[in-house]
Amino acid sequence: MPEHFYDTATSAHFSHEKMQKVNLFESPRMFCDVYCLKAGQAQHDHTHDGNDKVYHVLSGTPTVRIGEQTRVMCAGQTAIAPAGVIHGVRNDSTDNATLLVFMAPHPRLAVPPNGR
Amino acid sequence: MPEHFYDTATSAHFSHEKMQKVNLFESPRMFCDVYCLKAGQAQHDHTHDGNDKVYHVLSGTPTVRIGEQTRVMCAGQTAIAPAGVIHGVRNDSTDNATLLVFMAPHPRLAVPPNGR
Repeated sequence: MPEHFYDTATSAHFSHEKMQKVNLFESPRMFCDVYCLKAGQAQHDHTHDGNDKVYHVLSGTPTVRIGEQTRVMCAGQTAIAPAGVIHGVRNDSTDNATLLVFMAPHPRLAVPPNGR
Repeated sequence: MPEHFYDTATSAHFSHEKMQKVNLFESPRMFCDVYCLKAGQAQHDHTHDGNDKVYHVLSGTPTVRIGEQTRVMCAGQTAIAPAGVIHGVRNDSTDNATLLVFMAPHPRLAVPPNGR
């Protein structure tokens, strides 16, 4: 039977090498990951022309940039980068940080609008 | 300047009439809502043929059905209903419950694959 239920706290894992992305689910329509950042780690600023992204903070105090706004966030807060808006996340704190992250459509699995 | 940051706790609002859906963001690619259920309220079981849905519990202990699995969930837990899998949520507890909910693509705004 496929697993449909996840505990984000126990799904998290961290590496000294770089930020970890733990995938919970993916399809051509979307992905849902847990991003796990140790102190000093980051997903550098970037833009997706045709994909929306949501960052929802689970733990810690990550610093999120969306467009020209940058904020230190905390658990329960959500940041949304519509398609075409530059975004990124870094952990400037001394504690671990985790975020639930959604992107739609999936940047690698989605079929382009023209079907190619 | 568009707002890109949200606090899910202060976004929530409840009604004695029915479960509330507070939209944070929508595009043809996805929506992101906060579902707010008072005791006894529910989103009845249903299925979307071409859309994935994610329920992430923010507060309370909602009961979530995905396919043939039903669980009482708590904050930090996530349930994912892939396209075509029956799902629903109800609040059988005596306290309010809130969930962050994502669906991709947007069931009303998305352009069908055939472009019509």
